[in-house]
Amino acid sequence: MASGKELCEGVEWRIRVVDGSSEVLVPPTGLARKVWLRTKGLISGLGMKVRMFLKQAWDMGANDPRKVIHCIKVGLALTIVSLVYFMRPLYDGVGGNAMWAIMTVVVVFEPTVGATLYKCLNRVCATCLAGFLAVGVHWIASQSGDRFEPFVVGASIFILASIATFSRFIPSVKSKFDYGAMIFILTFSIVAISGYRVDKLFDLAHQRISTIIIGTSLCIFVIMMVCPIWSGQELHSLTVRNMDKLSDSLDGCVTQYFTNSNGEDDQKLQGYKCVLSSKASEESMANFARWEPSHGRFNFRHPWKQYLKIGASMRSCAYCIEALNSCINSENQAAESIKKHLSTSCLKVSSSSSSAIKELAESVKKMNKSPNMDLLVEEMNSAVEELHNDLKSLSHLLNPSTTAENQISATGLVPFMEIIPVVTLASILIEISARIEALVGSVEELVEESEMKDKIVAKEEKPEGTMKALQRV
Amino acid sequence: MASGKELCEGVEWRIRVVDGSSEVLVPPTGLARKVWLRTKGLISGLGMKVRMFLKQAWDMGANDPRKVIHCIKVGLALTIVSLVYFMRPLYDGVGGNAMWAIMTVVVVFEPTVGATLYKCLNRVCATCLAGFLAVGVHWIASQSGDRFEPFVVGASIFILASIATFSRFIPSVKSKFDYGAMIFILTFSIVAISGYRVDKLFDLAHQRISTIIIGTSLCIFVIMMVCPIWSGQELHSLTVRNMDKLSDSLDGCVTQYFTNSNGEDDQKLQGYKCVLSSKASEESMANFARWEPSHGRFNFRHPWKQYLKIGASMRSCAYCIEALNSCINSENQAAESIKKHLSTSCLKVSSSSSSAIKELAESVKKMNKSPNMDLLVEEMNSAVEELHNDLKSLSHLLNPSTTAENQISATGLVPFMEIIPVVTLASILIEISARIEALVGSVEELVEESEMKDKIVAKEEKPEGTMKALQRV
Repeated sequence: MASGKELCEGVEWRIRVVDGSSEVLVPPTGLARKVWLRTKGLISGLGMKVRMFLKQAWDMGANDPRKVIHCIKVGLALTIVSLVYFMRPLYDGVGGNAMWAIMTVVVVFEPTVGATLYKCLNRVCATCLAGFLAVGVHWIASQSGDRFEPFVVGASIFILASIATFSRFIPSVKSKFDYGAMIFILTFSIVAISGYRVDKLFDLAHQRISTIIIGTSLCIFVIMMVCPIWSGQELHSLTVRNMDKLSDSLDGCVTQYFTNSNGEDDQKLQGYKCVLSSKASEESMANFARWEPSHGRFNFRHPWKQYLKIGASMRSCAYCIEALNSCINSENQAAESIKKHLSTSCLKVSSSSSSAIKELAESVKKMNKSPNMDLLVEEMNSAVEELHNDLKSLSHLLNPSTTAENQISATGLVPFMEIIPVVTLASILIEISARIEALVGSVEELVEESEMKDKIVAKEEKPEGTMKALQRV
Repeated sequence: MASGKELCEGVEWRIRVVDGSSEVLVPPTGLARKVWLRTKGLISGLGMKVRMFLKQAWDMGANDPRKVIHCIKVGLALTIVSLVYFMRPLYDGVGGNAMWAIMTVVVVFEPTVGATLYKCLNRVCATCLAGFLAVGVHWIASQSGDRFEPFVVGASIFILASIATFSRFIPSVKSKFDYGAMIFILTFSIVAISGYRVDKLFDLAHQRISTIIIGTSLCIFVIMMVCPIWSGQELHSLTVRNMDKLSDSLDGCVTQYFTNSNGEDDQKLQGYKCVLSSKASEESMANFARWEPSHGRFNFRHPWKQYLKIGASMRSCAYCIEALNSCINSENQAAESIKKHLSTSCLKVSSSSSSAIKELAESVKKMNKSPNMDLLVEEMNSAVEELHNDLKSLSHLLNPSTTAENQISATGLVPFMEIIPVVTLASILIEISARIEALVGSVEELVEESEMKDKIVAKEEKPEGTMKALQRV
């Protein structure tokens, strides 16, 4: 049969080779079809991608309407700054350099108040400094004669740009004045070099500064008046949210392990991963928050740096939860009897730890020291103590030389390997409780510092209050 | 006595109050001295700070001379672009808008080639797109009559700026075109609105595009010719360096624990913390690396994303090392006899694991599959097996019902609590070895993908090679 088929195919093949017309006809049909199919596939694929992209964008907007509001704010600020062009006196006032105001708005407008203020203040200060310096350098250059002028200007640009660029690498400068250093280079180069072509250099510097001030003040007005988003508030909420996640993950993991339930929400269990990955955003938020004036319950000079310490403490807990998770998913299954023996105390430790974290979250949220905190920590410690005792009594299950004979007869001896996962889990739980105590310490520091700052601010405001009262009299 | 003193002070006080001159004289001397002391303190404090700052800057430059080279490159690029001002024909060619070229250089010049290319390509494409669109919008606006022109222009700016700002929130756009979206808004606003005042709008758009092309091409030339720093190469070295650190930390911790030596270099032991904190920099480097043309051993389209997977695997190992460290520093001290019992196998696991990581580092460094890798993994697994057995036999130390009577008599029974730290350490070590196997998998994927890409590139280059050979003939 098989050989017959082969023969048949072979015959057909030879026929095709001989018959030229059929051979010529087939490939174009194939090609046209291929091209058509490929084009169709490409278009539908592209359509699919575009649809996915739009859906993603829509979901993002629906999940966080503040992003949409931010976009409208940018559009608004740009439309307002465009008025400079449409109003003759304003346009002439800045010597046709109105585009710098637009540029400022586009470049400076950030989603949060802190980031916008950081950029605005940096931009204004750096522009003023660089403008004055550039006018000075131009004066020196013009004194040195036509021949040397380009060299003096060129050398000054080279040196100052190099130094300013280098300063951007220094951590303390980078965190506070990175943008300012860039604007310094920009303005200095433009103003210094324009001196060679522009006659009224002082006017140029003046126009640049005034357009930038127009742009930045408009930005500050819009960002603070229309639904402001404060970096500080964001950092605060992120910290509270992360604490809740940490607490849910911890409790969820341990409960799932001891009750063998898979009903727990997986997203809830993985919440600690958010804590692990939020270092960068915490740092940038803390960085911007210190530029913000007092808002809501936060004064200017609120101890934002303390949030970073809390974040670090939370991450150190999250590392342990990661290790805990690996115990839970380990191949080495624990004996049920041992699990039962330790489950009560382990669950007690995890629930008391997680309620301690929840209380901490509440304490941060309300920014006051919780009266229950000491009690909860004590409860956690007593649960840990209980777990210690249970671990000690575990040896009775393995070591009949002690007195607890009756216990053994009830549960039977178990192989040592089968107690390892539970023991590891228990000791990681104990470690987590120690780390939670460190977390309690850093939260208390935050609350104390914030209360202290509040008092200082209240004191500083008092004399002003008296002054106002006097004026009214 | 006490009342006498009080009386005496009281008398003195009254004398002072009566004697006006002495009362007036004392405070100024105190005040002057105070002011002098405070000024002196302030100046010396400021001097100290400045000295510290300069030292920090100097150390930074000495530790990484490439930063200094980058600064010189920025200075160089700016000085070259200034030539546009000094050369009449060039200056007139761009209609006095030469400052845009300077602006481009300042804004676009980044330390690595990838980051600079990303910004350059984004800037050029976004400027072209926005320029054409703005000229179109201006044409439509001018057709709608003088009265409606400002409204058409304003509305188009509002809508396009809002949409472009929104797109910057979408992750896929943010990672590739964030800067482009900003430049799009900038150019569109400037060109569209200038149409209201500037007569030759097409010239303005043309000048903006050509100055930006001058600036970007100069930047690309300087960044690639003068000691280039490639993001890809940096990411590659960072990955190799982190692997070495991970391996050193792992081995160092376990050795320190079992040999009770404190001679280990603390910095070496804490190396794993670098792995924990390098996520953000890995991501940004991988992001920029894909813009880079082929350099060194890396082709364009080198699988940079795979480095992120390797980074994640390394971090999952580092989490475990963190947990390991907490066991080592735990208050609960382990019994020496148990430590001795497990030390050989634990040390074997840690040394074989750390040499496996070292070999992986070597494999990534040379970008080929190491022939010893399988052997090393096998060795690690057999060490883990041995540790398993040692753990099993540990029960004999606690449970005399088994046959190993002589072992017990040699070591004696130990309380169960004293074995917990060692058991926890051992089980974390076993978990680490499992995670190292995952790391091996992701490194092998990287090597395979990179070899595959190499082959594709070689194939693609082959026809060209033949073409060249033909041309030469």
